[in-house]
Amino acid sequence: MRVLVLGGDGFCGWPTALHLSAQGYEVAIADNLSRRKIDVELECDSLTPIRPMGERLGAWEELTDNRIQFHQLNVAENYRQLYDLLLEWQPDGVIHFAEQRAAPYSMKSSNHKRYTVDNNLNATNNLLAAISESGLDPHVVHLGTMGVYGYGSAGMRIPEGYLTVKVETEEGDLVEQEILYPPNPGSIYHLTKTQDQLLFAFYNKNDSLRVTDLHQGIVWGTQTEETKLDERLINRFDYDGDYGTVLNRFLMQAAVGYPMTVHGTGGQTRAFIHIQDTVRCIQLALENPPQTGDRVQVYNQMTETHRLRDLAKLVAEKTGAEIDYVENPRSEAAENELNVRNDRFLDLGLEPTTLSGGLLEEVTEIAGKYAYRCDTSKIPATSLWRPEQRAAHNTPLHSADGR
Amino acid sequence: MRVLVLGGDGFCGWPTALHLSAQGYEVAIADNLSRRKIDVELECDSLTPIRPMGERLGAWEELTDNRIQFHQLNVAENYRQLYDLLLEWQPDGVIHFAEQRAAPYSMKSSNHKRYTVDNNLNATNNLLAAISESGLDPHVVHLGTMGVYGYGSAGMRIPEGYLTVKVETEEGDLVEQEILYPPNPGSIYHLTKTQDQLLFAFYNKNDSLRVTDLHQGIVWGTQTEETKLDERLINRFDYDGDYGTVLNRFLMQAAVGYPMTVHGTGGQTRAFIHIQDTVRCIQLALENPPQTGDRVQVYNQMTETHRLRDLAKLVAEKTGAEIDYVENPRSEAAENELNVRNDRFLDLGLEPTTLSGGLLEEVTEIAGKYAYRCDTSKIPATSLWRPEQRAAHNTPLHSADGR
Repeated sequence: MRVLVLGGDGFCGWPTALHLSAQGYEVAIADNLSRRKIDVELECDSLTPIRPMGERLGAWEELTDNRIQFHQLNVAENYRQLYDLLLEWQPDGVIHFAEQRAAPYSMKSSNHKRYTVDNNLNATNNLLAAISESGLDPHVVHLGTMGVYGYGSAGMRIPEGYLTVKVETEEGDLVEQEILYPPNPGSIYHLTKTQDQLLFAFYNKNDSLRVTDLHQGIVWGTQTEETKLDERLINRFDYDGDYGTVLNRFLMQAAVGYPMTVHGTGGQTRAFIHIQDTVRCIQLALENPPQTGDRVQVYNQMTETHRLRDLAKLVAEKTGAEIDYVENPRSEAAENELNVRNDRFLDLGLEPTTLSGGLLEEVTEIAGKYAYRCDTSKIPATSLWRPEQRAAHNTPLHSADGR
Repeated sequence: MRVLVLGGDGFCGWPTALHLSAQGYEVAIADNLSRRKIDVELECDSLTPIRPMGERLGAWEELTDNRIQFHQLNVAENYRQLYDLLLEWQPDGVIHFAEQRAAPYSMKSSNHKRYTVDNNLNATNNLLAAISESGLDPHVVHLGTMGVYGYGSAGMRIPEGYLTVKVETEEGDLVEQEILYPPNPGSIYHLTKTQDQLLFAFYNKNDSLRVTDLHQGIVWGTQTEETKLDERLINRFDYDGDYGTVLNRFLMQAAVGYPMTVHGTGGQTRAFIHIQDTVRCIQLALENPPQTGDRVQVYNQMTETHRLRDLAKLVAEKTGAEIDYVENPRSEAAENELNVRNDRFLDLGLEPTTLSGGLLEEVTEIAGKYAYRCDTSKIPATSLWRPEQRAAHNTPLHSADGR
């Protein structure tokens, strides 16, 4: 079976490409290396020493005899190249990671908002338009986010994508309908994922495209079975205020002796998943495609929920690190409950890797091993959500290139 | 009071700019003349002889002593120019028409789909990001579409933007919530308007932007009190298969002796509004802004609903024209009911101009007067919604420029 991984150089894309290759899939990656270019822009780097694509792929072939194709192309801009690649590669599945994926980065300035909207929506629309034009019928698997729901479940468990509601007719009857869960995005990044959902629903209805949308929790960990095989295959580890995800940031901060920065009261409850489970979930989704005519299939791709201050306390207990409560740069509720269904992946056989499973130690080990590469000035989150916060902090609103 | 009209050269934008100018507003228009350029692309032209912007504005000043500023700029591309214009003009209100507005055009090919998504979403996001960055607080009035609801009301009257639903909690209680009406767009064009709604909701929540979104029905008619004053002020009249709206097409077809093309059974029910009411509604919306902190204000901007075959019969009776039932190029229900609330504009004092109000004759007159400018080869709708239709008709899928 052939797959095309759009965004296959990124934090989730790279281990997914390796995992599928190891499982016997023929894999091609398309990526414009935007994530590495953003490292250059932010003057920051992965804590782990990730290798250039050529070296990564050479090492993989050397170790496993599996060859992964690489196409350097911008999915949001190079439509004709993407179209030609689809026709040439004839994939059975396309995994779509080709989006800017950090909420803080999307809120840094007008230009970052504009880049995120422009890039993410054109990437998704280009993919769907190209498939429709090609006449091919690959299964599209998209990495979405739990953030499409907004955070808060108001007495219910968040369902998988669709919500059953009752609506009153003119005659006063209650009619049951199933709708896409009403979106409540918390950043421009999350917003684009709610807009993606509408693109998927439209092309599914009009062009009968087969789509699976994965509403993923916050990923933690860095290595998978495959990326562990050789240091040249190592996965990204982001610790900076824009791209670092919360638990990895805590573990790295503990490793370098920097107080763990908890935003606000830390009362925010979030959904989590280990990177190893991410790649397993994607394979499960890929191997269970919807039938032609089925609506968009949605899975919640997460394994557990935690309150952020509890996570910080857990790491503090294990490592002796301190906790620093700082002003929350985000515009969000200080405290929320979160209760999420993930029956669909459990039914497909997923065995969750949880925080208690010993992998915290592995991440701590990696963070410690590469702590010498950390630039602690990049740890604080500097992106502010609200105009009045920006005014108070005198943060410049657009980057120097004046786009 | 100062207003900025984005897209002020178009079918709704131009008469709106004149109407507000006549009412004493200081008006600036920003437009990249994209609608005229699309005429060039489609090798078609407005039935009415619209004048270049310079001549239009000169005539308006000559007649009324009112000066309207014109800025030729692309809202979707020229962010910095838009931002500077906002700071310079300091508008109290921004009316946003700067979007590709034809459903058939948006479905012509992959490139038309891509243009519509790219243009419409970047235009809206640029406007909102620029306002947020500027620190100004203009009231944004956006022209949306009734098409965001999908067509069909399943036993209820379609509310104005928000729907009250009941959701069952884990404990089995029914909790009432008000949500954005679940979108069900019928074309890429309509899709972009549903995605716009999410942009408005986000910037409203995060940046406290004040936004009114007008879900407009199908506009008919061509002239308003102001465009009638002088032939140099005449408004567009589109009759082609992409941009012509249904009732205007029927009247023009009757005027040139071309059978009225009804798609499918003509059982589709649609909402309508006369162009004169469009400009009045926009003024009413402008003068009734939401307060800071209010959610996005939504009005249904329509005055009546009709089944398309009934409209064709009405025009046939008046003019003796024939009806030609042709294959429906759209993917939609053959027959639907449509029952829409428009209490909000009625409460603000709108007195609807209806089909029975004598204006049908005025449109027929205009259509007859300029019938000599009609290219009948442009009348049929050639844009097909579904891949299998396109295969059957052997329609090329992308335009010659190979973007």
